[in-house]
Amino acid sequence: MLPIPTKYFISFGSCNADHPLNAFDGALLSAGVGNTNLVRVSSILPPSAVEVKNLVLPYGALVPIAYASKVSTNKGERIAAAAGIGIPEDPSLPGLIMEYSCSGSKEEAEKTVLEMVEEGFAMRGFKLLEKKAVTTDIVVDKAACAFACVVLWY
Amino acid sequence: MLPIPTKYFISFGSCNADHPLNAFDGALLSAGVGNTNLVRVSSILPPSAVEVKNLVLPYGALVPIAYASKVSTNKGERIAAAAGIGIPEDPSLPGLIMEYSCSGSKEEAEKTVLEMVEEGFAMRGFKLLEKKAVTTDIVVDKAACAFACVVLWY
Amino acid sequence: MLPIPTKYFISFGSCNADHPLNAFDGALLSAGVGNTNLVRVSSILPPSAVEVKNLVLPYGALVPIAYASKVSTNKGERIAAAAGIGIPEDPSLPGLIMEYSCSGSKEEAEKTVLEMVEEGFAMRGFKLLEKKAVTTDIVVDKAACAFACVVLWY
Repeated sequence: MLPIPTKYFISFGSCNADHPLNAFDGALLSAGVGNTNLVRVSSILPPSAVEVKNLVLPYGALVPIAYASKVSTNKGERIAAAAGIGIPEDPSLPGLIMEYSCSGSKEEAEKTVLEMVEEGFAMRGFKLLEKKAVTTDIVVDKAACAFACVVLWY
Repeated sequence: MLPIPTKYFISFGSCNADHPLNAFDGALLSAGVGNTNLVRVSSILPPSAVEVKNLVLPYGALVPIAYASKVSTNKGERIAAAAGIGIPEDPSLPGLIMEYSCSGSKEEAEKTVLEMVEEGFAMRGFKLLEKKAVTTDIVVDKAACAFACVVLWY
Repeated sequence: MLPIPTKYFISFGSCNADHPLNAFDGALLSAGVGNTNLVRVSSILPPSAVEVKNLVLPYGALVPIAYASKVSTNKGERIAAAAGIGIPEDPSLPGLIMEYSCSGSKEEAEKTVLEMVEEGFAMRGFKLLEKKAVTTDIVVDKAACAFACVVLWY
């Protein structure tokens, strides 16, 4: 099987650019994941995974990642993305990652993503030790991206 | 290279929830894949891969999976998802996985996905030994998801 | 961690079929990646990755790939897809892959994807040694797909 990640890293970024995919690319650079190959997953924290800061990822690495992303070309629109994490009381159980993006503010995105974390824990019958979120927003000029992520790593 | 899966497991699930991503999460739990990191692939059965039942996946594992998913927030709408498999006569050849989701019933989704398996075999000039499908549907309350999958495993 | 690819392979394909996913499947076959499990990534050339030709991928392999794809069921519409690559002057830096698809011709898709490569290099402050693109288009009959890709391999 593929190796199970043992660490995680939360981040976010946003960017305006000429083309939508460049705005996405710029948001990834701003989040510190831009020179890697993101492998999008849905979206669980392995039990006892450890949070790390200032993770430097090798260029071109295959990086498992859960993320929320919104791209827009509607000049003047505010767009937001949030990633939420729930950590269970029982460390033998998995944690939960939720992603949410919208037209709106980062406060709205954060509120919703934390509700989603709570609903996911309730659905599992797991007790929540801690929940947290990262969120960002940006006003669109030509093409913009708001991006929030949880990188899973080793 | 990444290791080639040697087993497969077919499943399905559906769920109503408050938020669309929670409905998706609930459908994954119902299908037995909800506490893992799904890595979506398109979508081939490795030659001679063996079907297994009651697969228990490690929490947080990176799980290659082909799936059909439909999420809706249109109250009263019936949504359906189906995953189809075609097994070739020649065991040295790969099998084919097809995914289909729609607004409609599970019978409609199953009929279409099996046509897609046949078309995929015809396109390859492979002889079909066996075809099968899993399918599910659900009527939307607030936010719902219909989900059908083929997990590739080791 | 997952192994970092060391080679790459560029390709493209297009196909008309009865169902949209079969058109996608046919385009993959035409591009030489159709009997594998594509793991879509976004989208960096690892430093010093070597271009190869005529790559034969094992049936059912998990294949990291960056791709542009457009599927349409609008009879008579021309659809196009392009994948662009930028190679940096400094071989210790990563290269960049950009993907673009549209309703239109392959020439339009190629022009845009090469602009995107240039914008991505400008954003990073990297000097561009070489840029190139692959592109394709097709006129839709019942359901069609235009597809262009960069396979990352070992």
